[in-house]
Amino acid sequence: MAPEVLPDGRLHGACVGILAGGGPLPGQVARAVERAGGRVFIIGFQGFAEPEVIGHWPHRMVRLAAAGEILSALHEHGCRDLVLIGPVRRPSLVSLRPDAAGARILTRIGKALFAGDDGLLGAIVRVLGEEGFTIRGAHEYLPGSVARPGALGTLTPDATARADIALGRHVVRQLGRLDIGQGCVVQGGLVLAVEALEGTDRMLERVATLRQPDRPGGVLVKMAKPGQERRADLPTIGPRTIAGAMAAGLRGIAMEAGATLITDPAACTAMADEAGLFLTGIGGGDEKIT
Amino acid sequence: MAPEVLPDGRLHGACVGILAGGGPLPGQVARAVERAGGRVFIIGFQGFAEPEVIGHWPHRMVRLAAAGEILSALHEHGCRDLVLIGPVRRPSLVSLRPDAAGARILTRIGKALFAGDDGLLGAIVRVLGEEGFTIRGAHEYLPGSVARPGALGTLTPDATARADIALGRHVVRQLGRLDIGQGCVVQGGLVLAVEALEGTDRMLERVATLRQPDRPGGVLVKMAKPGQERRADLPTIGPRTIAGAMAAGLRGIAMEAGATLITDPAACTAMADEAGLFLTGIGGGDEKIT
Repeated sequence: MAPEVLPDGRLHGACVGILAGGGPLPGQVARAVERAGGRVFIIGFQGFAEPEVIGHWPHRMVRLAAAGEILSALHEHGCRDLVLIGPVRRPSLVSLRPDAAGARILTRIGKALFAGDDGLLGAIVRVLGEEGFTIRGAHEYLPGSVARPGALGTLTPDATARADIALGRHVVRQLGRLDIGQGCVVQGGLVLAVEALEGTDRMLERVATLRQPDRPGGVLVKMAKPGQERRADLPTIGPRTIAGAMAAGLRGIAMEAGATLITDPAACTAMADEAGLFLTGIGGGDEKIT
Repeated sequence: MAPEVLPDGRLHGACVGILAGGGPLPGQVARAVERAGGRVFIIGFQGFAEPEVIGHWPHRMVRLAAAGEILSALHEHGCRDLVLIGPVRRPSLVSLRPDAAGARILTRIGKALFAGDDGLLGAIVRVLGEEGFTIRGAHEYLPGSVARPGALGTLTPDATARADIALGRHVVRQLGRLDIGQGCVVQGGLVLAVEALEGTDRMLERVATLRQPDRPGGVLVKMAKPGQERRADLPTIGPRTIAGAMAAGLRGIAMEAGATLITDPAACTAMADEAGLFLTGIGGGDEKIT
């Protein structure tokens, strides 16, 4: 079911509920919904959502596990479509302290709480769907922030970098099949680092000490997991990723086109061009990299 | 061709050349050769081999790339069998400064210098074979230091740990196929960390901050790469690995039986028993874990 879109492309006045983690994307989704004529109500997850990002819109800060409070606030504001956006650290059960509805929902999520990220996010999306909501991907509201195929800035990968991208893509594909992570760093045919629970920023930190001084560059490859719930947890890059890649001495970043969100494409492009890094959108398959 | 073994199990007087990196294993191989009636000559790689480990035997400290000096010293001492043992950081070409023979050998190693570890070590073993040496695995001299199937100390993995071992084994198998690394850490079905160039010790360091407080334990799984040259770079654990696993809050270590070297089995067992960790040898295939 597509969002209700008026003939002029504006959203019908219905309210979009935004379940907000950290970073600037929740605000960007809210702006995009408003620009299209819709309304938003934001649930900011305590400890993750940034008040200065979501404060401009009707919102409530809520504990992650206060599912009863979350569901009733969303119903109260007439939200039918929901967007989950912005990073949230994987919660520990001890810290959750669910409310009554939260405990019932945790039971329904059940075993997936102990699975990899795909399993957990898939279960959350399924439970919210059962509660009558339609879950939408942030990329549906931010088409301009989704990586496209090819170069984003002025630089393009050379032959060495393209070979590293091809190897990195193969590696991340395998990792993704195992529900492990969305990224790796390859330098001149050598896999320097593989991302698991620590995330991209911490992986890039250690790459600075693993880089081989006598090999060209090095490339960060980010891709969605093949089986992942694309309405939650798409790979995301932003100015911090570019800064991390620069600090690690990399030559560029390859990201899956159509499946990677860029938090601030203009800033990322400017930083990358300035630093001499390429940013390139690649396909998820095994086709030739250009 | 087996080592020349006398009817009483002693090695014939021929000299075994030990190409020594760091850690205690080069000394243990030397002792084992002597105990079997053989002689040793040790090439200690500068910056890696520990003088206090190898100093007890005839030896020479040599730069890694001084292949001419290495080969002539080995020939001079009548070495026919060679053992490569002890960790050596992957050298950078810039730091190598090969001698004349070294430059010729680097040319023969060629592209493998830029491949993953398997490719490089395989090429080194091949070149040394072409020079007339027989390359032997350290495990041939240290059968008591090779992990055996089943529990090493008094503790055994429970059902949760066995499930984590099964997942970790599958993950490391895939990583190994890609020539990435030999280890990963799994906790309650979640892959916390995957080892690439940083090695096991550094991976364990970050696991301390990635462990999930509400899940049981966590397990380090170490296995050889399926295609790897087993006469070089077998997975190794030692007291430092046990200490790292303890600091990371893990429940135990599973290692591939027949393909993992334990630098000091008695100390490892004592430390693990004391700390409540299990140490268990597992098969390389997909059979049931007990």
